[in-house]
Amino acid sequence: MSDGIPFGHHALKARRLGIETLHEAHIFMRKDCPVCRSEGFASHNRVLVCHGEKSVVATLYQVAPDFLGIDEAGLSEWAWQALELAPGARVTVSHPAPLESMSQVRSKIYGHRMSAHAFDAIIADVEARRYSNIQLAAFITACASQALDHTEMRGLTAAMVNAGDTLSWDKKPIVDKHSVGGLPGNRTTPIVVAIVAAAGLTIPKTSSRAITSPSGTADMMETLAPVELDIQSMRRVVEQEGGCIVWGGAVRLSPTDDILIGVERVLDLDAEGQLVASILSKKIAAGSTHLVLDLPVGPTAKIRSHETARSLSHNLVRVAHEFGIEARAIVTDGTQPVGRGIGPALEARDVLSVLKGDANAPDDLREHALALAGNLLELGGIANGRMMAAEILGSGKAWAKFQRICEAQGGMHEPPMAPYTHAVNADRTGIVDRIDNRRLSKVAKLAGAPDDKAAGLEIHVRLGARVAEGEPVYTIHAQSPGELNYALGFARDNKDIVGIAIG
Amino acid sequence: MSDGIPFGHHALKARRLGIETLHEAHIFMRKDCPVCRSEGFASHNRVLVCHGEKSVVATLYQVAPDFLGIDEAGLSEWAWQALELAPGARVTVSHPAPLESMSQVRSKIYGHRMSAHAFDAIIADVEARRYSNIQLAAFITACASQALDHTEMRGLTAAMVNAGDTLSWDKKPIVDKHSVGGLPGNRTTPIVVAIVAAAGLTIPKTSSRAITSPSGTADMMETLAPVELDIQSMRRVVEQEGGCIVWGGAVRLSPTDDILIGVERVLDLDAEGQLVASILSKKIAAGSTHLVLDLPVGPTAKIRSHETARSLSHNLVRVAHEFGIEARAIVTDGTQPVGRGIGPALEARDVLSVLKGDANAPDDLREHALALAGNLLELGGIANGRMMAAEILGSGKAWAKFQRICEAQGGMHEPPMAPYTHAVNADRTGIVDRIDNRRLSKVAKLAGAPDDKAAGLEIHVRLGARVAEGEPVYTIHAQSPGELNYALGFARDNKDIVGIAIG
Repeated sequence: MSDGIPFGHHALKARRLGIETLHEAHIFMRKDCPVCRSEGFASHNRVLVCHGEKSVVATLYQVAPDFLGIDEAGLSEWAWQALELAPGARVTVSHPAPLESMSQVRSKIYGHRMSAHAFDAIIADVEARRYSNIQLAAFITACASQALDHTEMRGLTAAMVNAGDTLSWDKKPIVDKHSVGGLPGNRTTPIVVAIVAAAGLTIPKTSSRAITSPSGTADMMETLAPVELDIQSMRRVVEQEGGCIVWGGAVRLSPTDDILIGVERVLDLDAEGQLVASILSKKIAAGSTHLVLDLPVGPTAKIRSHETARSLSHNLVRVAHEFGIEARAIVTDGTQPVGRGIGPALEARDVLSVLKGDANAPDDLREHALALAGNLLELGGIANGRMMAAEILGSGKAWAKFQRICEAQGGMHEPPMAPYTHAVNADRTGIVDRIDNRRLSKVAKLAGAPDDKAAGLEIHVRLGARVAEGEPVYTIHAQSPGELNYALGFARDNKDIVGIAIG
Repeated sequence: MSDGIPFGHHALKARRLGIETLHEAHIFMRKDCPVCRSEGFASHNRVLVCHGEKSVVATLYQVAPDFLGIDEAGLSEWAWQALELAPGARVTVSHPAPLESMSQVRSKIYGHRMSAHAFDAIIADVEARRYSNIQLAAFITACASQALDHTEMRGLTAAMVNAGDTLSWDKKPIVDKHSVGGLPGNRTTPIVVAIVAAAGLTIPKTSSRAITSPSGTADMMETLAPVELDIQSMRRVVEQEGGCIVWGGAVRLSPTDDILIGVERVLDLDAEGQLVASILSKKIAAGSTHLVLDLPVGPTAKIRSHETARSLSHNLVRVAHEFGIEARAIVTDGTQPVGRGIGPALEARDVLSVLKGDANAPDDLREHALALAGNLLELGGIANGRMMAAEILGSGKAWAKFQRICEAQGGMHEPPMAPYTHAVNADRTGIVDRIDNRRLSKVAKLAGAPDDKAAGLEIHVRLGARVAEGEPVYTIHAQSPGELNYALGFARDNKDIVGIAIG
């Protein structure tokens, strides 16, 4: 069995299975294959898979004989790419080195404080994908259960910054903004970037794609211009225009953040310490010196109470300060969506109408963007920020700047329109007294957002508005009749997504 | 897309992939299949898979087109069996009901005490496999991090008992024993059962198979007699002979224990509260009234300090008492293996030699079994238990009883012998001063135990023994030359498994 092959190394034919596993590598092998037998592997063991100089730690699943050959190893997509395999390649599978940093996680579980060194060790292993999702869940749970103190928040933040690339810029200030998620619409970023860059400040903005929401800023921006820029192209755009709005996935800023978020979402856990490290690590890595944080509070937003918002603001500003960033946190209204559209292209239309100064542009999005831009201008040393922001927007300078940024990123284009739409009407006459952000997002997702860029919904009412029975409350947009019906089915089963009080 | 199919239900052809996933159901679907598109599913979503009256909640993995047909759903082995599918069957896939009990887990994470009702809700969902491994990891970590108090231990224990079947017996006392694992060899159960049953007490013993060790009691016992008895057969054996030694997997006593243990092992977490609930829930479900607990303490055993053993003893006895069980915990020596054999058949040979009273039977195993049996006899109302136990063993009554139990379970047979053996010799002359239980177990596993029943090793030395250079320290047994070499390779790389101090 081990004849001719060095101890602990057995070559198997790699087979690409195309399985998407978030950030965990999976390997599939037959229970009766020589490697499993001689190494004593069982399902769920973590194994070391090597190909040339490349290696990954993968979770093993044993399979029945008719699914794979006895000398084959099936690999998930992430593992295949990380190993840079080609068809016909061979891999060796053996026991990985013990995951020493898990002892730090266990120590945290049992109530001990974690050192900066411990966070460094854990996050380095997370970055190298040595943690399985089960182990990640334990780390995340431990950090939520034994809440991180200030020193630990700083330690985790620093470790996350160090695990990725960092940007540095010749000038100062480098300004940035961040909105804590959970609020549909709320697409202030392109407007803020355009205003701030038009005012002469530097704002190299990276944004994310949707993970569980119907649209991320990068998804929305992609309906207007290319966003997958590498670090050189991003630098060129920023040097030329003072700002950009690109997808953060192409630049490796705090890459472990995405890995941790994947598991946090499954658990629906948003512990403060992790939120602070998640937000700030990306900004520190991006080289920001001044930062405005938008914290929307509402019963169906991510932050549900003003007490939580206050504590989070305090910690964000304090930790940011220790990394040399001047930060300002603004608690905003998170009781209803901002703007009218939910979904990449529909949100882009809102953004364009605000930038162009259309008469019917959504007021709330305009005001929200101006408040954030105004604060950023002031942080960047420009007096009367709010007034200046309004002037830049009103004069068309922001719109001109936005178009130049889009051109620099590769060319501006029109957002698509969905071929199928259907209105959901009020089933009674009354006053809108509640809007469920989470279920509204779900309708947009069922309609096809964010994969179908044009899909989503437009909401026609705001809290406090009077509606008459039969009037449209929101309109669903979809790429196909099937998806339209599917979203409508959910909407009909959930008539209280928009609450209407009789009176 | 949804034409003709009710909202939320889409039929896909089920394909059996034979993937072993412990206790989590996995489903594989193409990202571009109509169900994923219309339901808005993404990889790692939990989905409800239905077939007729049966349903399971599964973790979804999206795959590349060439791996599955667009109308196919690949299923892991556990999912296939739970849904009772046959080739060509169709399944529907939809969104599952929200996992409400996870909010209780989050509450525990944030430091709130858990009610008995909360444990009932969580454990019922765990039993129904509604928890993914990520969610199980969070629950286990939370219970370790926010240590369970006495009331919580009772609540978790009761919930685990209620989630499975329970046995009841017409007579009393019903005695039982449990050894906390981690010590190779230590196969006292068959000897204790034989002595106690021969003394006229009732001991319906269920045992487990190995999960990560080279042998479980059920694996060892299977080399002597059938152990996969259903509940009726088990009752018949116990009514006829007063005792049995069967595999617990065929009777559903505290089934969630195995699910939780699977994840605990990945995390290497043994929190006291969970250990108490794990041990006692099986005994309560089995209808025990009197219980002896064997707690081996040693640097490479599961319990590493006397302080841990004291606290665990205290909680085990106290919680057992609340469920009407009189328990006695005995702290024993866990610094080295008990008996000579490690591996199913080799351990069976030790057991037989003690039962038969062979002159060269391992003293430590005999003494350990007599201590446990003596305590059980006293708990069961028989005075001078230790003396009585020795008399029953010495007179051959235990051996006779053991043979009758084996016959009643389906017939006794000889344990197999391995065709390949090789001795590992001392590399210096000196005194044995340390034995690493964990790595010794690993050698036995690499040699093929427990799947190869005859595989494992025999250890020839004990702590304090003098050995001369070149003398055999242990002998590896294997079914094939490859496995023998494999275990030998590891043994040669780990010469300090048995430490020899010069002097």
